[in-house]
Amino acid sequence: MTFFASRWVEQPSHVREATDGRLPQGFRAAGVAAGIKPAGLDLAVVVSDVAETTSAARFTRSGVQAPPVTITRERCRLDALRAVAVNSGNANAATGRRGLDEAARMQGGAAMIAGAREDQVAVCSTGVIGVQLDGQTVIKGLLSLRPDLREDGAADLAEAIRTTDILDKHVALDVDLPGGTVRLTAQAKGAGMIQPSFATMLCFVQTDAALSSETCDLLLGVCVKRSFDRISVDGQLSTNDTAILMANGASGVAVEPESEAELRFGEALDALLRQLALLIVKDGEGSRRTGRVVVRGGADEVVEHCARSIANSPLVKTALYGGDPNWGRIAQAIGAALPDTHPLAFDIAIDGTLVCSGGQATGDVAAFDGDEVDVEVGLPGDGAETEVFFSDLGHEYIHVNADYTT
Amino acid sequence: MTFFASRWVEQPSHVREATDGRLPQGFRAAGVAAGIKPAGLDLAVVVSDVAETTSAARFTRSGVQAPPVTITRERCRLDALRAVAVNSGNANAATGRRGLDEAARMQGGAAMIAGAREDQVAVCSTGVIGVQLDGQTVIKGLLSLRPDLREDGAADLAEAIRTTDILDKHVALDVDLPGGTVRLTAQAKGAGMIQPSFATMLCFVQTDAALSSETCDLLLGVCVKRSFDRISVDGQLSTNDTAILMANGASGVAVEPESEAELRFGEALDALLRQLALLIVKDGEGSRRTGRVVVRGGADEVVEHCARSIANSPLVKTALYGGDPNWGRIAQAIGAALPDTHPLAFDIAIDGTLVCSGGQATGDVAAFDGDEVDVEVGLPGDGAETEVFFSDLGHEYIHVNADYTT
Repeated sequence: MTFFASRWVEQPSHVREATDGRLPQGFRAAGVAAGIKPAGLDLAVVVSDVAETTSAARFTRSGVQAPPVTITRERCRLDALRAVAVNSGNANAATGRRGLDEAARMQGGAAMIAGAREDQVAVCSTGVIGVQLDGQTVIKGLLSLRPDLREDGAADLAEAIRTTDILDKHVALDVDLPGGTVRLTAQAKGAGMIQPSFATMLCFVQTDAALSSETCDLLLGVCVKRSFDRISVDGQLSTNDTAILMANGASGVAVEPESEAELRFGEALDALLRQLALLIVKDGEGSRRTGRVVVRGGADEVVEHCARSIANSPLVKTALYGGDPNWGRIAQAIGAALPDTHPLAFDIAIDGTLVCSGGQATGDVAAFDGDEVDVEVGLPGDGAETEVFFSDLGHEYIHVNADYTT
Repeated sequence: MTFFASRWVEQPSHVREATDGRLPQGFRAAGVAAGIKPAGLDLAVVVSDVAETTSAARFTRSGVQAPPVTITRERCRLDALRAVAVNSGNANAATGRRGLDEAARMQGGAAMIAGAREDQVAVCSTGVIGVQLDGQTVIKGLLSLRPDLREDGAADLAEAIRTTDILDKHVALDVDLPGGTVRLTAQAKGAGMIQPSFATMLCFVQTDAALSSETCDLLLGVCVKRSFDRISVDGQLSTNDTAILMANGASGVAVEPESEAELRFGEALDALLRQLALLIVKDGEGSRRTGRVVVRGGADEVVEHCARSIANSPLVKTALYGGDPNWGRIAQAIGAALPDTHPLAFDIAIDGTLVCSGGQATGDVAAFDGDEVDVEVGLPGDGAETEVFFSDLGHEYIHVNADYTT
């Protein structure tokens, strides 16, 4: 009912939030407290019972890639995934050869309980980096969750992938297409170490619509670019980012390329992923306020670099946290992003009020203390435009990241 | 006595801290409470009484360059500066045409009281961005400080350029050269918005040694590259960074090119600027601990990018603040800096303990809670090496930057 809460995401009229929270037909999930974390659910599986399930995936671009990412990328049919196994409490990253063995073992165990081939099972991990994952604990956990796999298991999955998340990041949507109604569900996690290059920390999407693997890949690619690729909590890129879309066709409703159905399904997926991405930003560790910066100018690289510089500036982020209308810090971030370009004629508007025009203060003052604050920056030239959603930086971020020893 | 306090800077044996704190012969300075800030000294001048004073300067590379920087760069004989006028409480940045007029007016007023030509007077400002500087207040202040210009005025100058600084950043050194002893003094400021490209926020250096302007430029350039260019508090680049060295020859001791005197003077200037740079990092708003990251590998751009990624990572910085030996965050920053390079064989050592070797945890644990923590990173290849000094990120940074409205 309240999933599409941001002013920056419009709920398409053919998309309804489902109250029953069930996975799409033919999908089952379960979570278990396997003992990887000191307490709580920490291991989960989602599986499609349809053999011909199609899929697509996106991963972190980090040069330090966790073994589960490597195993999934190198050993899976990414266009035909039927299951995902995921744990929290340990990222299985910087763990070398043994980490690869443990990720492969996790994949094998999940394939067994899912009744799928190993190359149809993606594995994902999130948690602390540099500690070996105990494969025996994972296998025991997988075996114990097997009897619990069920259509309403998505909430358990979402719970099991939380780390420092506070906000719920899962939803079930019904999407009206010309051929009938399909279900679209997603579970995501992420609150810190967030500036995905083209995936969030973790996001799993399921639908009972029938899509070719090419359509899966196209739609996931486009929508990730407009969602998880446009957010930053702290400018950090995880070693484990993974986003996976699975479509099993169990509804009997097909989404053909370049059809009205594809357009509508794409709109639904786009709104879904953008709202999930915004939830990750809003959940940015300790965040009070969310900012959106839109930069327009003459060159794609320039507007992108400038938008990231503003979104990741600790001075801009602390100003947002404090509700301090100190737009000089935005000017600073612009100048820092574009060295040796002086004199630079730039405009800054905050929630529609022009505070700086042609590089010069207008004298107008804008508040900086809404829940969602819009920053628009104009640079010389035309034709390029980008947006980045970002969280503020406050005491709770320090508390979460410094005061507790991991 | 206590100026060379860092383990990362060696006090040369021919350099002594002077107890009298006086400027070099022929230099005078004074500060005044002009009313630009609500209270305290906020305007100062340092002047050499020798007409043939030589000089060199370095400035911010920001695309958003404050009018005082523009005026100084474009209207001054940077090789023959005789005076600097500087205010705090207002950066005179993003102030457009009027800002340029006010900076020029400040330059004219300072030239009058210094008895120098306008093109021999540098002007600098620091403080809030986007607010017009009141030139009338500046002129009145300059006139009132004129009678106070004196040899022991350096402390006033240092006081007048403080903003959020807590640590003292000025010193007087005596430097033994083959031809006699010369004095070398410096006053710096900076605590936030600090990742100079080749200048600190503000740093003024004076000596009564005789240097050609070419030698000034060479030595300042080399030493700035090894000091202010190697630090980061918050990865932010100011609109106003300026470093100026003035040499008036009043001691009668010459520093000739490629001489023993040049070597020794260079060593003294190097130690001075490195220690001042470290003071800025240590004074990083709310900093508890200082880190040094050294990255070695095969390519200059790669080691530089990787070192900055670590030094500016809020996750690494909060771990340092919390004394949390979570080196996985360093691994994250390495991977984020070098996308699409997987698999990447990297080593991480903390204070000499190898915690990660070839991308894999060694199992050894290193403390992360000294006052000065050394991080060494090895990347594939040889021949390139860089270092960056950085502050941690803690509650006080948020307090300074968010809790007070500027």
